[in-house]
Order: sequence, then structure tokens, then C-alpha cells
Amino acid sequence: MAVLPEIARTLTAIREKTPLIHHITNYVTANDSANVTLAIGASPVMAGDPGEAADMVARAAALVLNIGTLSAAAVDTMVAVGKKAGQLGIPVIFDPVGAGATPARTAAAERIIREVRPAVIRGNAAEIRAVAGLKAAIRGVDAAGDEQGGEAVARDLARRLSGGVALSGRTDIVAAAGRVCRIANGHPWLTRVTGTGCMATSLIGCCCGAGADPFAGAAAGLTFMGVAGELAHRSLARGDGIGTFRVKLFDALFALTAETVLSNGQIDCLEEE
Amino acid sequence: MAVLPEIARTLTAIREKTPLIHHITNYVTANDSANVTLAIGASPVMAGDPGEAADMVARAAALVLNIGTLSAAAVDTMVAVGKKAGQLGIPVIFDPVGAGATPARTAAAERIIREVRPAVIRGNAAEIRAVAGLKAAIRGVDAAGDEQGGEAVARDLARRLSGGVALSGRTDIVAAAGRVCRIANGHPWLTRVTGTGCMATSLIGCCCGAGADPFAGAAAGLTFMGVAGELAHRSLARGDGIGTFRVKLFDALFALTAETVLSNGQIDCLEEE
Amino acid sequence: MAVLPEIARTLTAIREKTPLIHHITNYVTANDSANVTLAIGASPVMAGDPGEAADMVARAAALVLNIGTLSAAAVDTMVAVGKKAGQLGIPVIFDPVGAGATPARTAAAERIIREVRPAVIRGNAAEIRAVAGLKAAIRGVDAAGDEQGGEAVARDLARRLSGGVALSGRTDIVAAAGRVCRIANGHPWLTRVTGTGCMATSLIGCCCGAGADPFAGAAAGLTFMGVAGELAHRSLARGDGIGTFRVKLFDALFALTAETVLSNGQIDCLEEE
Repeated sequence: MAVLPEIARTLTAIREKTPLIHHITNYVTANDSANVTLAIGASPVMAGDPGEAADMVARAAALVLNIGTLSAAAVDTMVAVGKKAGQLGIPVIFDPVGAGATPARTAAAERIIREVRPAVIRGNAAEIRAVAGLKAAIRGVDAAGDEQGGEAVARDLARRLSGGVALSGRTDIVAAAGRVCRIANGHPWLTRVTGTGCMATSLIGCCCGAGADPFAGAAAGLTFMGVAGELAHRSLARGDGIGTFRVKLFDALFALTAETVLSNGQIDCLEEE
Repeated sequence: MAVLPEIARTLTAIREKTPLIHHITNYVTANDSANVTLAIGASPVMAGDPGEAADMVARAAALVLNIGTLSAAAVDTMVAVGKKAGQLGIPVIFDPVGAGATPARTAAAERIIREVRPAVIRGNAAEIRAVAGLKAAIRGVDAAGDEQGGEAVARDLARRLSGGVALSGRTDIVAAAGRVCRIANGHPWLTRVTGTGCMATSLIGCCCGAGADPFAGAAAGLTFMGVAGELAHRSLARGDGIGTFRVKLFDALFALTAETVLSNGQIDCLEEE
Repeated sequence: MAVLPEIARTLTAIREKTPLIHHITNYVTANDSANVTLAIGASPVMAGDPGEAADMVARAAALVLNIGTLSAAAVDTMVAVGKKAGQLGIPVIFDPVGAGATPARTAAAERIIREVRPAVIRGNAAEIRAVAGLKAAIRGVDAAGDEQGGEAVARDLARRLSGGVALSGRTDIVAAAGRVCRIANGHPWLTRVTGTGCMATSLIGCCCGAGADPFAGAAAGLTFMGVAGELAHRSLARGDGIGTFRVKLFDALFALTAETVLSNGQIDCLEEE
């Protein structure tokens, strides 16, 4: 089954259903995650207090968990709310920001994965390797180094999780349920704006919240981000830099159509088994 | 008394006095609230720690309370600081973000209203209905459904509070002290950018901080937001979307003049009694 | 030794080394601090949880502490992580946001300075006077009043700290190790956008993280901000306001070159002793 038409249909489904995407996320990029959710056509809610998060998730179509600014209390809430989502059949998308950078982050990511069993995990190569239990050179929350072998790691993690793995990089890799694809969209400036990883995770949440399965949802979210990055860069005038690029990224996601996705998406699908 | 000239005078008063607007607000839109306060000509301070918030409010001309990312501890602080503001005669503007969406939010909103007695409450139809004790269909923190009957609810709540009620919607409604008005300004894209409700509440804070009474302050804040939304959208070039619109919203508030308000404000005032 | 060539070399060093800048900062401007760090060519990480902050700082080239939205717990973490940075030889840049505005803020700032001994303190005139133990008229977190005498205060504080003091104002003042300079760059609109002070502090962190000493690092950070403010304003079209100016500020920092700094920097250096 070709994934690109599925991805284009997912965009249409988001606009028709405007799914409510519940985020428990960090304070650095929460505003960006909310605006990217609105730009693609879904509806965001950010609610991380233990006194209400479990009530909120019951109203949501998907739950996004992001440990960008983790705290011990927030991890407890993420686990409890993530389990509740699981009981309700609501897909959980997990962004293990900076996993591998400190023992606390790696432990938090591993605990959330073990106890919540997310539908999709999205991270850069270093983060995905860290949660897959492999050594990775990580500095802070930005990935360092090559993506060599990322595909094997993503496949293996997806198999063990029975979920989707979305590895963002120069070429993105998505693996789930015996399917693997590479997405060649994107622009280097996406790494020069904070929160583009978090935004991609939110977009995957929008896709899964609109009914996409983990593989199609992960592929769709990364394709939307990559294509929007290309279109945003193409729309820049002479002298524009990453400030304007960041603004145009929201414009491009807002303007994205099924047709634009079909004509710009560069996806190479492999049958794994 | 015609409200539009009062609104225009309020803008002039903000620029002359640059009132300090103390916010205890959420981490999703705090930056937007600060920038909107600066754009209109006032001075923001965000300080929510119980160890200093009561000291800070004593320096302020108005206090904005917003439960966008509520926590039990933050609600306690809001109540304590709100009471202090009341003792000092400093107007409190309250945004019951997402009231009705979870029991914790509704309870927090009701407690703040009961114990603080805000000068103005601003919310969308669902939030205002929730704090007025009526049933409302709410999803997350964004309003769903029509504003049918919103005027009666706003009037009734304003009467019981002896304060102002600002109901944001396709047509905004402001009620206070036997006066009611409808404001027909605004643009649909304001609902596609996160935080425009929070920003409107901050603008009402700026107006009340510059000396406007609850009715005029609430009407002025919503008019500034609505007119700025229209002007921002009008200034867009082909291909611009909500990212650029959001930037231009700050430009428009910064450029707003008493004359622009007088010539663009679409306010329909009713005498209630 | 002329400071302007040192400043230009610092910019080159940031781009070559992309130092990791660890921030423990406020939720209002954390996104701006991260984006400004990326724009100038360094790498940000925001991590304030006591369970991991000491592990994170060990990976960093500089530590930025900012009390914009202080809490008692955060101040404890800042002190512990700041001491760890000192043991590891990692420079600490401190922004005493709003010091003087409330007793809690002044006490927090004084404690951090006393126990951490930052390499550089950056603030406006009121904040620097407050931490220097002098009376200052402060409203909220924005400076009020003149900078008269700021130079003497900055010199004296720098001498007592054996560190650098960066005083932002219409004319910036930098003092450290017997050197003093005045920087005449900047634009008034920088005071109409929230977080430009925090951003300047982050830029100083990038400079010190790339190897600059406290004097050169503080002067470089303020010069980059001032020159970028001028270039951003110069690039505006008719009708643009502070929303667009804020976007162009990131563009200007991203586009900054050693040559632009050399040709635009307006630095007046004095030998103190």
C-alpha cells in the first residue's frame, strides 16, 4: 500500500475532524506546539496538572507527551495520563527530548515507554538510540553525529514496541508493523529553529488523532514538517533568515493541501518482511 | 454615554501612563501576553511565585489572572494575590481558560471568582457559561458551538458579580453595570492563533490599569484586539498565513491610534435598564 | 587591547565551536533565549530540574541563570548547579531580572551572586544598582529612570566580584578586570519587545562559552544585540512594527558576520586604572 496517498488523506481528515490534541509538554516550545496544531487544522490543549490531566485526556483524540523540560512530578503525571489514554484507546505520541543526555532523561524516557507503550515515539537519531538502549553521542537535546544504522535501530525498536518509530534526520526514517519508509523532505534551517522536533511530534499527534495508524501517522507528521520546511524556505526573500523562516513555517503548514503533499512528498517505502 | 470615544481615550491613557500590568498566567502564552502589553503601550510583569507575587501586585496598576495551565498551588496564589489587589483597589481581570472542560478548571474558576471578585471576567461563550453555572459543550480550551443566548448569560453574570463580563466570539459581548454592547470587529484567523484570548484579557488589563472602568475597559480591550485583527489581516500579502498574521497582529496593536479605533470600531451599545 | 576585533573574533569562534549553552531560565522568554542561541550559532539546552541540571551542566560550555520567573526551588537549583559549574571551570552568566522589584527577587539575586560568583552579571541600570546594594527605582522587571552613575556602579561591582558587569541601557556599559567600555549600539524598539534583556544575557553566554573572557564576552554579547537591533530596524518596511522587528532581530543575529560587527560596532573603551 502506497503511503503518500494515505498521508494526503490524513491531512484532509485532520481538517474535517479538527481533533483535540492533549499535550503534556515543556514550557520552552509549548506555544509553538499549540500553533502548529492550529496551523495544520487540529485543536490543541495543554494541560499537565495531575488534578485535571486524566479528565482532559478523556476528551482528546490523541495525547502528546514531551519531556523537554522534565521534572519528576511531570513524569509521574505523564505515566498516569498515558495509561489512562491506553485504557481509552487514545493514541499516545511520545517525544523523548534529550534522552541520553542525562541519566534522569534516559530513565524518564524508558519508564514512559515501558509503562505507557506509546503508539509512536519520535526523536532524533541520538534520542532514538538512547531509548533503544544503544550508546549515542548526545550533547544537550540536539543530536550530534550521523544517522548511520538509524534504520536498523528504528526497525528493531518498532518491532519490540509493536508501535511506530519516527526518526528525524537529514533523511527521516519511519518504522512500524513491518513497514519502513524514508522521507527525503526537509531543510537544514529546521535544525536552526528551536522546537521543530517538538512541532513534528505534535503534527504526528494530529495525524493519529484524525485516525491514522502509527505508521501512516508518523510518516504523515514528518512529511508535513519536511514539505512545509521546504516551502517556507522557498518563500523567503533576500536577506530573510531563521526568524522569518520560522514564521513562514506556520504559514506553509496552514496552506498545506493534499495536492501539495502529493506533489512534494519524497517518500521511499520499503517492505521489511 | 457613547462607549467608542471612551475606548479611544483609553488608548491614549495607556500610552501616557504605561501602567504596570502584573500577570499570573500560563506558560503557553505568557510571552504573547507580555508582548501584547508592550505593543499597546503598557508594561508587563509576570510573577507568580507565592514568595513575591503579593509584593509585586502592590506596584501594579492592574492584575491579570489566567488559569491556562492551572495547578493547585497557582490557584492558591491567584486567590491570595487577587484578594490583596482588592484591598489595594487594584482591578483584577480574570481569564477562566477552559472552564467547563474539566472539574478542576471549573472549580478553580468558581473559587477565584467567589473569593477575588474580579472587576472583569473575559472568556469565550463556553467558558462564560461554565462560570455562570450553565451547561456548555466545551472541548479543551477552545469554544465549540454557537453564542446563542450569550448576551443574556453575560448580563446575568455581570449583575451578580457587580463587575464586567467580556464574552469573545464572532460578535463580542460586553456587559457591566446596566450597560451592554456588542462589538462586531475581529477576524476568523484570530481563532487559528493560540493565545489571542489570553492577549485580549491582557489588553483589558492594560485598559483597566490606565483607569478605565470595567465596562469601558472590557469593551476597549476587545475592540483593540478585534480592530488589530482586521488591520493585521488586511496588511497580509498573497501567500501569507497565520504565522505572518500573528506577527502583524503585534504590529497592528503597536500602530493603533485613537483615530484608527474611532474609524474602525463597530460597537453597538444597548441600554439594559 | 582593542575590544572590537576581540568581539568579531568571538563571533567566529561561536560559529566554529557551536558551544552548548545550558540555561536555567524563566518560562516567559525561554523560547526566545533558545532561538537567539541558535541564531548566533551556538546550541541551547534548557534544563532546570534538580534531578538532572547538575548532570547537564557538565556537558555545557557555559551556564546561563535567569530569575525572570523565580521560585524558591529554582533558586536552590541555580545555586547548586552554579557551584558545580564553578568547580568545573564553566563560566556562569547571571541575569538578575527584576532585582529590586520585590524583596524575594533582591534576596535571590544576592544569594546567587554570593554563592555562585558569576563570571558575568547582566542587567539594566535598576537591576545592577539593586544587586550592587544601592537604591533604585524599579517597577516590575523593566528599568525606570536614568543611567546616571551607572558606570561607577558597574565598575565597583565588577571589582568586588572579580567578574564582568554588563549594564544594558541607552548606552551599554561593560566593566571587568580594570577595563570599561561603552557601547552606543541598539535601538529604542528593543525595549518594546519582551525578553531582549534575557536574549542579550544568552548571547553573552554564547560568547563566554566560545572562550571569551568576562569582559570581551559581555561586550560581545551586548554589541551583537545592539548591532542586530539596528540592522533589524533598518530592514523594516513601511507599516512594520514591533512584531516584525522581533522577527527581523533573529534574522539579523543569524546574518551577523565579523565584518558587520567591525563596521557597525560603536564601542568606546576606557582604561580604568
